[in-house]
Amino acid sequence: MRSGIGTDVHRLVEGRPMIIGCLRFPDEPVGPEGHSDGDVAAHAACDAVLSACGLGDLGSNYGTSEPRWAGAAGAEFLTETARRATDAGFSILNVAVQVIGNRPRLGPYRTEIEDLMGAALGGVPVSISATTTDGLGLTGRGEGIAAIATCLVERAD
Amino acid sequence: MRSGIGTDVHRLVEGRPMIIGCLRFPDEPVGPEGHSDGDVAAHAACDAVLSACGLGDLGSNYGTSEPRWAGAAGAEFLTETARRATDAGFSILNVAVQVIGNRPRLGPYRTEIEDLMGAALGGVPVSISATTTDGLGLTGRGEGIAAIATCLVERAD
Amino acid sequence: MRSGIGTDVHRLVEGRPMIIGCLRFPDEPVGPEGHSDGDVAAHAACDAVLSACGLGDLGSNYGTSEPRWAGAAGAEFLTETARRATDAGFSILNVAVQVIGNRPRLGPYRTEIEDLMGAALGGVPVSISATTTDGLGLTGRGEGIAAIATCLVERAD
Repeated sequence: MRSGIGTDVHRLVEGRPMIIGCLRFPDEPVGPEGHSDGDVAAHAACDAVLSACGLGDLGSNYGTSEPRWAGAAGAEFLTETARRATDAGFSILNVAVQVIGNRPRLGPYRTEIEDLMGAALGGVPVSISATTTDGLGLTGRGEGIAAIATCLVERAD
Repeated sequence: MRSGIGTDVHRLVEGRPMIIGCLRFPDEPVGPEGHSDGDVAAHAACDAVLSACGLGDLGSNYGTSEPRWAGAAGAEFLTETARRATDAGFSILNVAVQVIGNRPRLGPYRTEIEDLMGAALGGVPVSISATTTDGLGLTGRGEGIAAIATCLVERAD
Repeated sequence: MRSGIGTDVHRLVEGRPMIIGCLRFPDEPVGPEGHSDGDVAAHAACDAVLSACGLGDLGSNYGTSEPRWAGAAGAEFLTETARRATDAGFSILNVAVQVIGNRPRLGPYRTEIEDLMGAALGGVPVSISATTTDGLGLTGRGEGIAAIATCLVERAD
């Protein structure tokens, strides 16, 4: 059994859709900048899975120069990451993600996000939680949104 | 078996007691602002346990609008969180917390804090560690104090 | 079985060698300030191992006032930390580290770093990954470099 860790931060700008954990929040005035859809929860989750399996990270697996991954959705990264973990002989036991930011409020959408991310990973238990930083730091000032994730895997012998 | 993650940040202000891991540090000139006692170690630990169990987070479990949790101590959150984990069919294997901030020095109080938090959780092994950020960021500038925690649980079948 | 967590941040200054995960990057214009070599990956990994085992942290184990640890390399801390974990009756299952910073690019050196850190820990699987913070915060502004690590241990009964 092995544990992994992943974090992600994206800058928030006007004119971009806010997508967190494969769910779109259409009423948000700002959204994450990035090559992809900037889904910090999905990205941190992928990095945690890759980290647990010793398979590198998002950057080494999904180069921004590869057309396939330009503008890719979080769900695509999750599905492909689960496939690579399986191919490497690992079974994902769970993924836990905490989103750090001022908004949107995730509470009402928690189960929906957990279901979307869990399905994208092929049936893995996913937990989503959220917190703020009391107005401090890059997330507290609203400059960006962050996520941190951990993952437990075991050798699928 | 499942792992969880939790972080917490509180702003430090004059005129508030410094409480970390259920222990009061009476000589500190500043303390955490907040609805509760601002115990970042207890809050991050609770969020890690809830995250591992897929039970949401502090905000969704202990709404600030509920009188029971207004000004609640970290130990109360830990005890209730352990109860909810048990009710959901989980056994907590351990909780590990790292406090990030300039002060106070936690080293001399490590065992005392670990005992207080472990007892509040109903006999779970808790580890407390501490680090600084070399004068950088929100904790380095002394604006706030942070904690990060991980937790391992298993289905209590 | 127990999980642990560790983070580390060092300020980057001119005239110091950049060392990450026991590997020196000779072409970097800045490097971490510190009593030791400022190897954030090694330090976060040690803190995660100590955290999982309930053995305190870098500060309580390797006081800056002890001549033996002044200017110590990351590999020395890793080897001694693994020894203390073993002495306390734990077996380290894996260590996963994510480095957070603008540069250097770690991708091409990932396997080399994983081998160096794994060997320093006495044959433990180590995974190294990297991310940035989109130009935000202390790492995004290039003021510092950070690392976050998790670790899984079991009682070696």
